[in-house]
Amino acid sequence: MPSRRTFVDRAECSRHNIFPGVNVFTAAGRQMMLSLAEFEPHAVVEAHSHPHEQVGMVVGGSATFYVGDEEKLLQPGDMYFIPGGVIHRVVATDEGLQALDVFHPIREDYL
Amino acid sequence: MPSRRTFVDRAECSRHNIFPGVNVFTAAGRQMMLSLAEFEPHAVVEAHSHPHEQVGMVVGGSATFYVGDEEKLLQPGDMYFIPGGVIHRVVATDEGLQALDVFHPIREDYL
Repeated sequence: MPSRRTFVDRAECSRHNIFPGVNVFTAAGRQMMLSLAEFEPHAVVEAHSHPHEQVGMVVGGSATFYVGDEEKLLQPGDMYFIPGGVIHRVVATDEGLQALDVFHPIREDYL
Repeated sequence: MPSRRTFVDRAECSRHNIFPGVNVFTAAGRQMMLSLAEFEPHAVVEAHSHPHEQVGMVVGGSATFYVGDEEKLLQPGDMYFIPGGVIHRVVATDEGLQALDVFHPIREDYL
């Protein structure tokens, strides 16, 4: 069920280990889901796609984002926009990565 | 027009001064818009509402969020979920505030 909570702290989020060294802390609104992704140094989200649009911003650390045929090393404050269905992959640097992802519609697998 | 860019840094965002001491740096995807809001110490976003759903997370500083009849002092990592049509107000502490907002659908007034 999507959350009907107004305020959600980290301890109240759902937690999922989605790849080795990559944990996501998620909470859902009505039509959007927030997912704070934390990567250990050099952790990788392998190439995948999903029908949901995904947008987000790097909050800490850094990583190379591969989206379709584009790639870029992103730092804190950098934003990314991944349309539904586009294959993407993320490789954290030796700093690790913290990034806030947002999905629309809600990813039922992350509830 | 919504952006068709994959990667957007701060300098490429649209900038809007929405209240005294409050600037937002925005970029749009297909169905969601990211808006990095920066509040000077004690700056205030006055009570307002919009039909767009708004979700987000505090990235730096702190502020009291008033959403409908709820209020809470939020710190970095804390998330908030504001359904469309609900009146909300944000008052930064003496630290100021940085928060990443996400809107669905896209706020045309922030393009």
